[in-house]
Amino acid sequence: MAAEEDAEALAAARPLLTDLYQVTMALGYWRAGRAHDHADFELFFRRCPFGGAFALFAGLRDCVRFLRAFHLRDADVQFLASKLPPDTDPAFFEHLRGLDCSSVTLRALPEGSLAFPGVPLLQVSGPLLVVQLLETPLLCLVGYASLVATNAARLRLIAGPEKRLLELGLRRAQGPDGGLTASTYSYLGGFDGSSNVLAGQLRGVPVAGTLAHSFITSFSGSEVPPEPMLAPAVGEGPAVNLPAHVKVWLERVCAHLGLGVQEPHPGERAAFVAYALAFPQAFQGLLDSYSVCRSGLPNFLAVALALGELGYRAVGLRLDSGDLLRQAQEIRGILQSTAARFQMPWLERVSITVSNNVDEEELARLVQEGSEVNVIGIGTSVVTCPQQPSLGCVYKLVCVGGQPRMKLTEDLEKQTLPGKKAAFRLLDADGSPLLDLLQLAEEPSPQPGQELRVWPRGAQEPRTVRPAQLCQPLPSLAESRAFAQRSLGNLRAAHRRLQSPEQYQVALSERLQALVGSLSTGSSL
Amino acid sequence: MAAEEDAEALAAARPLLTDLYQVTMALGYWRAGRAHDHADFELFFRRCPFGGAFALFAGLRDCVRFLRAFHLRDADVQFLASKLPPDTDPAFFEHLRGLDCSSVTLRALPEGSLAFPGVPLLQVSGPLLVVQLLETPLLCLVGYASLVATNAARLRLIAGPEKRLLELGLRRAQGPDGGLTASTYSYLGGFDGSSNVLAGQLRGVPVAGTLAHSFITSFSGSEVPPEPMLAPAVGEGPAVNLPAHVKVWLERVCAHLGLGVQEPHPGERAAFVAYALAFPQAFQGLLDSYSVCRSGLPNFLAVALALGELGYRAVGLRLDSGDLLRQAQEIRGILQSTAARFQMPWLERVSITVSNNVDEEELARLVQEGSEVNVIGIGTSVVTCPQQPSLGCVYKLVCVGGQPRMKLTEDLEKQTLPGKKAAFRLLDADGSPLLDLLQLAEEPSPQPGQELRVWPRGAQEPRTVRPAQLCQPLPSLAESRAFAQRSLGNLRAAHRRLQSPEQYQVALSERLQALVGSLSTGSSL
Repeated sequence: MAAEEDAEALAAARPLLTDLYQVTMALGYWRAGRAHDHADFELFFRRCPFGGAFALFAGLRDCVRFLRAFHLRDADVQFLASKLPPDTDPAFFEHLRGLDCSSVTLRALPEGSLAFPGVPLLQVSGPLLVVQLLETPLLCLVGYASLVATNAARLRLIAGPEKRLLELGLRRAQGPDGGLTASTYSYLGGFDGSSNVLAGQLRGVPVAGTLAHSFITSFSGSEVPPEPMLAPAVGEGPAVNLPAHVKVWLERVCAHLGLGVQEPHPGERAAFVAYALAFPQAFQGLLDSYSVCRSGLPNFLAVALALGELGYRAVGLRLDSGDLLRQAQEIRGILQSTAARFQMPWLERVSITVSNNVDEEELARLVQEGSEVNVIGIGTSVVTCPQQPSLGCVYKLVCVGGQPRMKLTEDLEKQTLPGKKAAFRLLDADGSPLLDLLQLAEEPSPQPGQELRVWPRGAQEPRTVRPAQLCQPLPSLAESRAFAQRSLGNLRAAHRRLQSPEQYQVALSERLQALVGSLSTGSSL
Repeated sequence: MAAEEDAEALAAARPLLTDLYQVTMALGYWRAGRAHDHADFELFFRRCPFGGAFALFAGLRDCVRFLRAFHLRDADVQFLASKLPPDTDPAFFEHLRGLDCSSVTLRALPEGSLAFPGVPLLQVSGPLLVVQLLETPLLCLVGYASLVATNAARLRLIAGPEKRLLELGLRRAQGPDGGLTASTYSYLGGFDGSSNVLAGQLRGVPVAGTLAHSFITSFSGSEVPPEPMLAPAVGEGPAVNLPAHVKVWLERVCAHLGLGVQEPHPGERAAFVAYALAFPQAFQGLLDSYSVCRSGLPNFLAVALALGELGYRAVGLRLDSGDLLRQAQEIRGILQSTAARFQMPWLERVSITVSNNVDEEELARLVQEGSEVNVIGIGTSVVTCPQQPSLGCVYKLVCVGGQPRMKLTEDLEKQTLPGKKAAFRLLDADGSPLLDLLQLAEEPSPQPGQELRVWPRGAQEPRTVRPAQLCQPLPSLAESRAFAQRSLGNLRAAHRRLQSPEQYQVALSERLQALVGSLSTGSSL
C-alpha cells in the first residue's frame, strides 16, 4: 500500500520527536565510552487504567515503523549541535549521523494482547546510546494507543457484541495525529468503525458517516434541485420528480401522525430530498435540527416513503440531542405504525443512530434491555479517555553489559524489577489467563502441565501453578482487533468487570524473586 | 525556515483528515447544484474550559497552513470514490480534484487572544462545498491547541511570573502530533519551554532537559572513563583527573554531612562524573535514583564542588519523587551550609527542578511563599488537560447565499446565533476587557467613547456601554505568547480567578438580538 508507506514515512521521519535529555544523556554515554554497551530496556505500566483490571496493548505497528525508519538527517544533527556545548567533539555528531536501529532487537506482546502491570509490553535491546534515544518515541507511540484501545474495549464490554459502535472523535483529539491514532486503536479495541476518512485510507479502518446540522440548515426550502428526477431502484419504470412525490407523501404522513402539513420545516425537507437524490440507495436523516417529532421525523418519513415507492430503502436516522433512549423508543413506535399504515415493513427496522456526549454511564443506559438504539456514535469519551487521560507507561533499564540493573528509589512503586526477563501467560484448564509469570531470560521456559513455583508480586509466599506459553506473529489490524476480543472473552469475569474488578496476578519466578532480594539488600551492585 | 516548511507540508498534506459525512454532504451539495453557494461558518465554543471564565485562542497558524496547502490528490479522490455510490457522477470527482481554498476567506481572533463563549474564534467564508469540508480539520486544529494553551495559562497564573515552567508531556500525549501540538501551545499559553526537541526544531519552542534514571542506573561504578581529565574553566592550569578529585570531595562532603563515605551509591556518582565530563559548563544531577539524602545529594555535591574547584558552576538538580516541596527546602539548607563550609557561594543558588505528577493543586503548593523550588516540570497535567480533556468547539453555518441561518434545536444550548457577524472587544477605562459585542457584519463598527446599547447574552434587558476595537496582525509564536500574557494581565481578577470566577459578558447588538427574535418565532425562514 503506497498510502500506508507514505504515512509510515511521515511518522517515522521525525527522530527528534524525543525529550532533549535523551540527547544530553547520549552525549554522556558517548563521552564515557559506553555508546556501544549492550543494554536491555523494558516498557511497561504500573497500574491498569480506568480502575479496571486489564489493559490492551497497542501501538506496536507504529513502533516497528519508527524503528525501521530511524535515522537522523543532517538538519537534525545540526539542530542538536545548536543545543549542545559548542566544544562538543565532532565525532559525536558523526556517530549520531550513522545511527540506525539495525542493532536493536524489539520483543513485544502481540498487538491487541491483554496486558497487566509490570509485564513488559516492549523489550528493547541494543547499544545503550540508541536504545536510550528511543525511550520517548516508544512511550509516545505505545501509551496513548494502548490507553484508547483499552477505553474502546471497556465501551465494547458495556455495549455487548450486537450494538454498532462508531468513533466520531477526530475533532476532539490532540491534533491530526491524535485523531488518527484514536481512530485506529479504538477500532482495534472493539469499535466497528470511525468517521475519520484518513484512518480508512491509511489504516484500513471501516469508515462511516451520516450528515451534519449545517447541511440541514443550509437549505431554506426555496432551492430548486437541478435534477429532481429519480429512476426506480430496479426495473424499467419511468423516473419521477422526487420533491413532488415527497410533498404528496408528507401530506399522508402528517395525516397519519396528526400534524399540520405546515409544521415540518421546508428547509429540512429540502435537505433530506437533496441527500436522497445524491444517495437514493443509502438515504439517512439527521432529525434534531429543528424539532424531532414535529419536523425531523415527518420529513424523514415523507422522503423515506417516497423512496420506498421507488424501491429504495432508507438506511438510518440519527439523533444528536435530548434524551436519546426515550426518543429512540418513541421513534421506533412511529416507524412501526407508519410501516404498517403504508405497508412498507422494512421501514420499522430502519437503523437508529444516536450521538451526543455518550460516556460509559450513558452507554450502559442506551444498551439496556429493550433499547431501540442500533448504532452509538462516541467522540470525546473514547478519544480523550476522560476517566484517565494517560496510561503512564515507563521505559526502564533492566540490564546493561549483561549486568542486571534496578532503580532502588525510596518511592516503592517506582522500584523496577531487575534483569532481562521473559514473560509467560499461564492459562487455566478452561483457557482463561491464570497469571502472568516474569522470569529471568536464562531460566528454562515453563512447560504446559508441569508444576511451577512462582511468587505473586508483592506476596510473601510462593504458590504453585501449571503453565502454557503465549506466542503469536504480528497480525493485521483486523486480526489484532479480533485477537483483542477473543482475549477479553477468555479473561475471567472477575477481572473483566469494570467496577471494582479483582486484580489479575503477575508473578515472579523463584530466581527473579531471589535476584530482587539480592539487589534490594545492598545499595550498590 | 526549511524545517518549518517541511512540517507544514507534512501536516497540510492530509485533506482526508476529516469525517466521512463532510464528503457525503459535499456530494449532496454538488448534486443539489449548491457547491458554489456562498456560505459563512463560525467556529466557537459554548463554555469556558476547566470551570474558568476565559480561554486562550490558539491553532491559527496551523489552520492557515492547512488552508494554504489544501488539495486532494488523485489517490485521495480514488479513496473517496470507493466510499461513495458506484454510480456517482464522475464530474463530482473532477470537482473535488480541482478544489483549493483560493476562494475561502478566513477571519480569526489574533493567536493567543482571550476568547469567550459564543464569540467566533474563526469565521470561514467561501463556496459551501469546500467550507463544509473544512469543518473537521479546523475543529481538530483549533480545539486542542486552544485547550492546552488555556490549561498552560492557568498553570502560569498559579505559578506566578517568576517560577520556570517546563512542559515534559510528550510521552503522555496522543501520539507524535499530539505531543508537538502540546509543546507548541503550552509555550504559547505561558510555559517557558519544553523537553520536546521537535517542537524546538519545527516551532522554535525553547527546549530544556536534565537526565533520566536510566542514565544513573546504567552505571555501576566499575566503569573507567576513557578521558577522565578535565581542564579548568578558564586560564591555563593543568587538567585534573575528575573522578579522583570527586573522590576527595566526597570524603569532605560526607564528613560535613555526617555520612559514611560508603553510603552514596558509586554507580550514581560515576553517572554524575560522566555527565560532568560531557557537560562541565552545565552539570546537573537527578538525585532520587537511590536515596536523595544519603546518596544523590552527597554525590551531586562532590561532583559540583570538584567542578567548582576548576571554575565550573553546576547549574541544577532535579527531584522526581516524594514530597518535592519539603525536599527542596531541606536541600536548599544543605546547599547553603555546604556553600558556606567550602566557600563556594554560587552553590547555594543552584536551581532546584521538581517533577512528578504536578497538577494545579500541587503546583500551588510548590510555589507557596518561601518555596525553594525554581523550576517545575509538568507532563501529564498540562498535556492531557485531565480536568476537561476537550474544549468542545463547534463549527456552525450562520449564513448561506446572504441569508442568515439558525439551528433552532429543542436543546437551547445548541441553538446558534444567526447571520454573518462582527465581534468587538469593548475595553473599560482602565484597559480591561469589559464585554465582547457580537453584531451583524453590516452594522457600523462601535466607536471608542460613543455610547452603545447592547444585549448581554441571555439577558432580558439591554445595557449601555462604550467600546474600543481590537485588531492585530498575525504575530510570531513568541509574540502570541507575550500577547496572551498581556491579555491575561488585562483581564479583571474576577474573571481571571480559576475557582468560581465571575463570567465575562458576551453581548449582542440590538439588530442581532432582533434577528434572533425574528428567526426564533417562526419555524421556517
